[in-house]
This record gives sequence, structure tokens and C-alpha cells, in this order.
Amino acid sequence: MSSVSPFRSPAQKAEERTAKRDAVLRAAVRMFNERGFHATSLDDVAASLGISKRTIYHYLANKDQVLLECVTLGLEQLIEAATAARQEAGDGRYRLIRFLHRYARITMDDFGRCIIRTGEEILSPESRPRFRALKREIDMALRGLIEEAVADGSIAPVDSRMAAFALAGALNWPARWHDPKGSLSPETIAVMLVDILTKGLDPRA
Amino acid sequence: MSSVSPFRSPAQKAEERTAKRDAVLRAAVRMFNERGFHATSLDDVAASLGISKRTIYHYLANKDQVLLECVTLGLEQLIEAATAARQEAGDGRYRLIRFLHRYARITMDDFGRCIIRTGEEILSPESRPRFRALKREIDMALRGLIEEAVADGSIAPVDSRMAAFALAGALNWPARWHDPKGSLSPETIAVMLVDILTKGLDPRA
Repeated sequence: MSSVSPFRSPAQKAEERTAKRDAVLRAAVRMFNERGFHATSLDDVAASLGISKRTIYHYLANKDQVLLECVTLGLEQLIEAATAARQEAGDGRYRLIRFLHRYARITMDDFGRCIIRTGEEILSPESRPRFRALKREIDMALRGLIEEAVADGSIAPVDSRMAAFALAGALNWPARWHDPKGSLSPETIAVMLVDILTKGLDPRA
Repeated sequence: MSSVSPFRSPAQKAEERTAKRDAVLRAAVRMFNERGFHATSLDDVAASLGISKRTIYHYLANKDQVLLECVTLGLEQLIEAATAARQEAGDGRYRLIRFLHRYARITMDDFGRCIIRTGEEILSPESRPRFRALKREIDMALRGLIEEAVADGSIAPVDSRMAAFALAGALNWPARWHDPKGSLSPETIAVMLVDILTKGLDPRA
């Protein structure tokens, strides 16, 4: 017989609550990505977890908040990836490439895909500023990594704003075309895309 | 006094009908791009033209058909651009770059933006195959232009499928970030983006 108390500690309760909330978000994000936000109801999300919609409301206020939490989780992964890349040893190009590889893999993952597949206009006017601020933070981090690599001469001089848009666009797009059941792994795709972007189309002498 | 007959010829009537249908599509595409498809009603579109929703139904069956026609107009522009590029004189790289410049400008235009801002899941299941087929046609045309440029040695050897995805992603993305009221013209942005993609990030000897 287990000697573990049948009464849960506050820490255990909080952990359980987080786990349940996460499960709701993970079920929701998959449906949003597959069917679209408007075609997904919280009833569908609840049904996929064998719970009722009322149970979801224990953890999240409404469908708009569910979506905002989903894109926030994706954006936080990107921000963490940028922070980690900045702390790497090596030259600017190395740190930039490390970030780009992780960036691409995140946008092929559930929460990352949701960022790209969610137009700002889908969120409520109240939720948009947070979405925009987090996206701007990532854009700024990417520009910063580009500028550092230009400064130490490890990449060619380039307009950092436009380069950030070109890189982000190329690496965001798998959120639309990548088939998780396809033959190439996200890791392989990330490396191939970044390789094309670093080498460019023009032949090298 | 004009000697023109007050009775319209069948050709004039057909032309007028096309002009009216086009005006509906142009009003609709702007609202779809700005507010999103779900937040736009055909009543809003009609009101912006000073007509009734019933008048729209003279030209278009329903909101799904309006959207399908909007993305089709954008996709047809891209297909025309590919056809025109293929007929250009010059080497493979020149033809590819010509297409990429036009491609970028189209995705910053109303109907082109709508292609990128419209996830397949927004269209009705009946409309999706046409959307998908046209997008595939453009993907194939882009891969073909890349392969021809690789074959004549005017660009570096590259996996044409992955390169097409990288290029398209980078050039699709302005449909999300470009502000038509911003300081850079679509033409300038197109040239800057394509320049980054052809040169790549790595310094050239």
C-alpha cells in the first residue's frame, strides 16, 4: 500500500491545474490549426478531451483567450530561442543561424504554427496589442542578431529590417505548407531552408 | 447632343456587367484583407458600394464564391507573371528574378494579399480544390524557373522544391507586414527582398 497522502498539497493542486490548462490549450491549438479558429468551438475542444465546456471555463475565460494563450505560448518559445541564441559563444553568424534553425522548427510545431496561421484580425481588439507586442519583440531580436553578425563581419552588410522580414517570411511559411506526415522532418527542412537563405541563389566563385 | 444610342448593345451590357462584378470583388477583397473574411458580411460590402446585398447576388452566388473569385484573381495574376517571365529573353536567372519581382508586387496588391491572408480552411470544401490547384500551378512554375536557372548555371545548384518554398515564403510575407501607407513602395520592397535572397547572408569573396 502506498504511503502517499490521498490529500493533495497546494503545490500538487497548482501543478494539476497547470497540466489541465495545458491539455486544453494543446487540444485547442491543433483544432485551430486544422479547421481554423472560426470553425472550432470550445464544445469541440472539450469533447476531444472527454470533458464539458464548463470545465474549460475553469481555466480559460473564452475562445478568444484560448487563442491568445496559444499564440503567446508559441511566441514565448521564439523569444526563449532568441535569448538562448544570444548567449551562445561564437560569432554573430553562428548565433543568428542557431536562432533561425530553432525558429523554423518552432513554426512547424503546434503553437508556432498557430502564430503564423492566426491573422491579427482574428483576435479580439483587446487581445491584439499583446500579440503585436510579442511579435515585435521577436522581430527586434532577429534584427539585433542580424546587426551583430553584420557588425563582426560574419555576414554580408544588409538592411536588418528587410533581411529580418525575408528570413522570417521564408521560415514562417512552413506553417502553411509543411505536412507533419510528410517525408522530410522539421529538422531537415529547417536546415535546408536556412542553407538556401545563407548561400543565396547566386553562384559563389 | 450626343448621337450615341440610349440603347445599350449586348457587348456594352456584358462590359457593364463585368465592371459591376469587378467593383464588388474589389470592395470585398479590401474588407476581407482588413477585417478578415468572417468579420465581413456581404451587407457591409454592398453598403460600401451604395447597393443592396440582393444586387450582389446578381453577380455572385454567396460570400464563399466572392472569396474564391478574389483569390482566383490574385492567383491568375501570378500565373500570368510566370508565363510572361518564361517568355523573356536572357538567362534563367534573369527570368527567375523578373518573376520574383512581379510576384512580390502582386502579393502587396489587394487580390494577391488575399491569397496569402486566406487559409485554405476558410474556403468551403467545394472551393478548396480550385484554390489548391492554382497554388500548385504557381509553385510548379516557380520550381520550373529555378530548375532552368540551375540548368544553365546562372544560379547555384539548389533543391528546387525547397528553394521555391523559401522564395515564396519570403515574398508572401509582405501580405502580412507591408503597410500600404508606409514609406517604402512595393517596388522598392520587392527589389530589396529579392536582392537579399539572391545574394544570401554569407559574405561574398
